[in-house]
Amino acid sequence: MKPVVLLDFWASPFGQRCRIALAEKGVEYEYREEDIMRNKSSLLLESNPVYKKIPVLIHDGKPVCESLIIVQYIDEVWPDRSPLLPADPYARAQARFWADFVDKKFNECGTRLWQLKGEAQAAAKEEFIEILKLLEGELGDKKYFGGDAFGFVDDTLVPFVSWFYTYETCAGFSIEEAAPKVVAWGKRCMERESVANALSDPHKIYETVGVVKKRYGIE
Amino acid sequence: MKPVVLLDFWASPFGQRCRIALAEKGVEYEYREEDIMRNKSSLLLESNPVYKKIPVLIHDGKPVCESLIIVQYIDEVWPDRSPLLPADPYARAQARFWADFVDKKFNECGTRLWQLKGEAQAAAKEEFIEILKLLEGELGDKKYFGGDAFGFVDDTLVPFVSWFYTYETCAGFSIEEAAPKVVAWGKRCMERESVANALSDPHKIYETVGVVKKRYGIE
Repeated sequence: MKPVVLLDFWASPFGQRCRIALAEKGVEYEYREEDIMRNKSSLLLESNPVYKKIPVLIHDGKPVCESLIIVQYIDEVWPDRSPLLPADPYARAQARFWADFVDKKFNECGTRLWQLKGEAQAAAKEEFIEILKLLEGELGDKKYFGGDAFGFVDDTLVPFVSWFYTYETCAGFSIEEAAPKVVAWGKRCMERESVANALSDPHKIYETVGVVKKRYGIE
Repeated sequence: MKPVVLLDFWASPFGQRCRIALAEKGVEYEYREEDIMRNKSSLLLESNPVYKKIPVLIHDGKPVCESLIIVQYIDEVWPDRSPLLPADPYARAQARFWADFVDKKFNECGTRLWQLKGEAQAAAKEEFIEILKLLEGELGDKKYFGGDAFGFVDDTLVPFVSWFYTYETCAGFSIEEAAPKVVAWGKRCMERESVANALSDPHKIYETVGVVKKRYGIE
């Protein structure tokens, strides 16, 4: 086993965050794909006994769980290159706030966009547009959420860019219309090798979502 | 306005975390009680436009929201006294993991204990006992979750000690039976002035829960 191992699943935005952070830092690691739907490895079950979920980062044999915690850990262990969190405490608190917002609001509502139908989906769409507008306002005319440099909030949100096509196709709306700056930011992020290598093909995500919907009878 | 202001509500475990952290650090601040159910102040609505929730810490006119983010901010701005997060990155990740667990699992399930009835409540009780046992295992024979010193996880969990009576009375079980070390830890924490001053009277919490249940017709 290499000193750094990532237990992950290719399409996971949470895993992709960790992959991007490791790439930004130039950390070599062993990627282990987990069969999360049918056959989780015993290493995963032992490493994350509380949630039994990917991603898990195993560093020198010690597991770290939960993607935002993993990314902060990576930033603290390899601080010399590409700092993800800013140095100033207030800026750090703001970055943590928006990263947490991505998980609590953006991702939660985004999932409802493809899991629901009819009125419930329409309500989710309305809510999602408000969420996009809040992110659009926070981004403003900055290059990245972190300012001139790619940072913690960028890393947290960018994996969902590959889900935009799924959100738009399932719920019938245009993200670019609601949040043109966020869409332009996504394209800017995709110019980074760390991001381009980690993100999934949007059409493959859409296909996989279709399979998941059939499996759980939500079609 | 003092340089440090806390917008809060007396019974909020999230607000109490912030009060404990400020007391541990010896930071003077202005406490402003919010009428969260009927009349939120315009300062609260402007300071936390995303969630419109207490607690909000306003430091030199700049708001910080979300209790775990506030406590980390306090720890970073006033690092000289009573460090709450450990210095080692792995220990920091573990502390963040368990603090997050308190919010995601313990609090979420604890709320179901008093909001639900019948079978749903019985299921929540079973789940809550598992959660208590995980915390009991993590605490082990340490004085605090942070080891010898009171830290981030202790601060995150301890406000819920005043809710134990409500959980036990509503759902009919003994927390001490399920997690005797956690109960002993709670008593140890209460010996600290910072904690004793912040926590609510368990009987007052129980009474308030009764009022809330009536208001929302869940009795």
